[in-house]
Amino acid sequence: MFKATCNSRDFKKVINATSNLVDEICFEVDETGIKASAMDPSHVALVSMGMPKEVFESYEGDIHDIGIDLEALKKIIARSKGDEKLILELDDEKNKLNVTFKSNVTRKFSIALYDVSSSNLKVPDISYPNQVSIKAGAFVEALKDAELVNDHITLKVDEDKFVIYSKGDLNQSETVFENNNDEYETLTEFKMSEPSKSTFNLAYLKDLTKSTSAEDILKIYLGSDMPVKIEYEVSGSKLVFLLAPRIES
Amino acid sequence: MFKATCNSRDFKKVINATSNLVDEICFEVDETGIKASAMDPSHVALVSMGMPKEVFESYEGDIHDIGIDLEALKKIIARSKGDEKLILELDDEKNKLNVTFKSNVTRKFSIALYDVSSSNLKVPDISYPNQVSIKAGAFVEALKDAELVNDHITLKVDEDKFVIYSKGDLNQSETVFENNNDEYETLTEFKMSEPSKSTFNLAYLKDLTKSTSAEDILKIYLGSDMPVKIEYEVSGSKLVFLLAPRIES
Amino acid sequence: MFKATCNSRDFKKVINATSNLVDEICFEVDETGIKASAMDPSHVALVSMGMPKEVFESYEGDIHDIGIDLEALKKIIARSKGDEKLILELDDEKNKLNVTFKSNVTRKFSIALYDVSSSNLKVPDISYPNQVSIKAGAFVEALKDAELVNDHITLKVDEDKFVIYSKGDLNQSETVFENNNDEYETLTEFKMSEPSKSTFNLAYLKDLTKSTSAEDILKIYLGSDMPVKIEYEVSGSKLVFLLAPRIES
Repeated sequence: MFKATCNSRDFKKVINATSNLVDEICFEVDETGIKASAMDPSHVALVSMGMPKEVFESYEGDIHDIGIDLEALKKIIARSKGDEKLILELDDEKNKLNVTFKSNVTRKFSIALYDVSSSNLKVPDISYPNQVSIKAGAFVEALKDAELVNDHITLKVDEDKFVIYSKGDLNQSETVFENNNDEYETLTEFKMSEPSKSTFNLAYLKDLTKSTSAEDILKIYLGSDMPVKIEYEVSGSKLVFLLAPRIES
Repeated sequence: MFKATCNSRDFKKVINATSNLVDEICFEVDETGIKASAMDPSHVALVSMGMPKEVFESYEGDIHDIGIDLEALKKIIARSKGDEKLILELDDEKNKLNVTFKSNVTRKFSIALYDVSSSNLKVPDISYPNQVSIKAGAFVEALKDAELVNDHITLKVDEDKFVIYSKGDLNQSETVFENNNDEYETLTEFKMSEPSKSTFNLAYLKDLTKSTSAEDILKIYLGSDMPVKIEYEVSGSKLVFLLAPRIES
Repeated sequence: MFKATCNSRDFKKVINATSNLVDEICFEVDETGIKASAMDPSHVALVSMGMPKEVFESYEGDIHDIGIDLEALKKIIARSKGDEKLILELDDEKNKLNVTFKSNVTRKFSIALYDVSSSNLKVPDISYPNQVSIKAGAFVEALKDAELVNDHITLKVDEDKFVIYSKGDLNQSETVFENNNDEYETLTEFKMSEPSKSTFNLAYLKDLTKSTSAEDILKIYLGSDMPVKIEYEVSGSKLVFLLAPRIES
């Protein structure tokens, strides 16, 4: 069996973040919580989410693989209002996931399960030379700046600086975050062991960070021509994204 | 002659509610006020509005049939701002309706009259087994829930419950309003003489209730496979809608 | 050389106002400030802007013609947030204009210069019989009213009245601003030496006034079948527009 109760706002944020790159997913449920990982259709990005039992108000779960049409789930979750109570319940017989919102009225949705088997994908354990932590709002703004000039973007770590830049045929944009020189604490962590530079598809990076709030802290792992790993937390749930670099020929 | 002055905000709401299903209408004006009724082009829904003389700040009217392009009138009324004074005046000679907004400037529109004769439609006097009153906001939200799963919706009255549900091939949605168990007073009235269930076209129900405010109280009359009748008031003006059921074959 | 620092909000407003009718422009820079004039592609309207040295926080400039893709500049300026410091700097070697926003982070854009030579256009020195000054908000609303009935609009000055009206085949709209009878001070100046009436293309008039704020005072110069001249100021910068009348045949 599987039945879990949580705050609809937090669950909404996790589902939105997961569904920006992936259409269907398999929730791997067990007594410790919910996990899910998937690659985007073009296999450029990997999305992984983990909601430990502790983030739920109440939680009971045996081992289940619950295949979900994320697009349908997202639309249903979008119908929640503010801080409603949200109840997820597996209906094994009918092969459905029941999603119930409780406030002054009870609103119940049922979604047919997909026959998606667990991917058993794991985020690979790569060792990175550099890691910065930055407020999501500032990172997203830098992506929007870059979008004006090109469809790819370079993330560079060098000498107490984290630089995001993009060059087009005519115009260019550049945002510089300086370590130890930031009264607003936008760049909250800066660990560099060697200068690095990698270029990424801008649309993917935008999707990866679309559901963040401005104050979320993104933990970004970087190396030269390595995939970028971006991690952040939503009230105890963990989101991890991996994006392959664009190798310039 | 016909000349009436009122608050633009109230008139806007009545016209918007009326025009969601109907493109042209004949205002039947006399000394007691304005009335109008019309069926939608596919003859599935009937719309009826009544603005008694008392809702106007000043009112003078002889018997007139004033045929109006509701789309044009709606656009003009949409140009009013907040609580302007609105003056409606028939220009018999030029065959126009003058619509004047008065605030710090005077803005005047003239609309050519249509040759629409009075429909003499009346809302049929049907006796209904059940009647519930519900806040428009909650009703509209239930329609939006249903929209995620199908294009029709079932309204059910049973055992101290008013249930709105929709079933799709894969997913389903259901909102339950319980009588006597509602601290927010969403369901303000519940009269049942026998259980009933009817299914309606969701798009029509959405149009019927599109111009409501969340706190408006909808008086809903229901019976099994009977048309639904929905009534509400806007500052003394009355709106009545009748919608034929979808008979499942 | 050319390097100037100003408030991003003011510069944004001037650029937006200029770019509504014109795609590219040549900033004529010298030690007294920035000037630019251009005609719209169909040569119906003339746009002229002047930012004297005094409106900048700091300003250094030799004589330069800086050809700009206004569309690209507008998009970049749109990326500024609130009252950031904005630095414009000519990079003569690379033939680029650098646009830098400074707040807690430094964001820098470079735009390639266009090969647009100075137009040497001047706003012709026409003598007008009439001139009114009016709040931009009220003027823009009158244009929106007119838009409901036709694609051209007539500006009329007569006997202590400034009237904006539009006639369609079926409907018409009219806004009357009365001199000396306006507690809200919408019409702040009224000088008439003879009654006048001219008709203009509504879409152009909308573009000319699109970037105004409701409280901006538009100085409007009018005569019968003469071009209309509209002037307003943005924190010391001057915008002038000239629009040819539509001559009814």
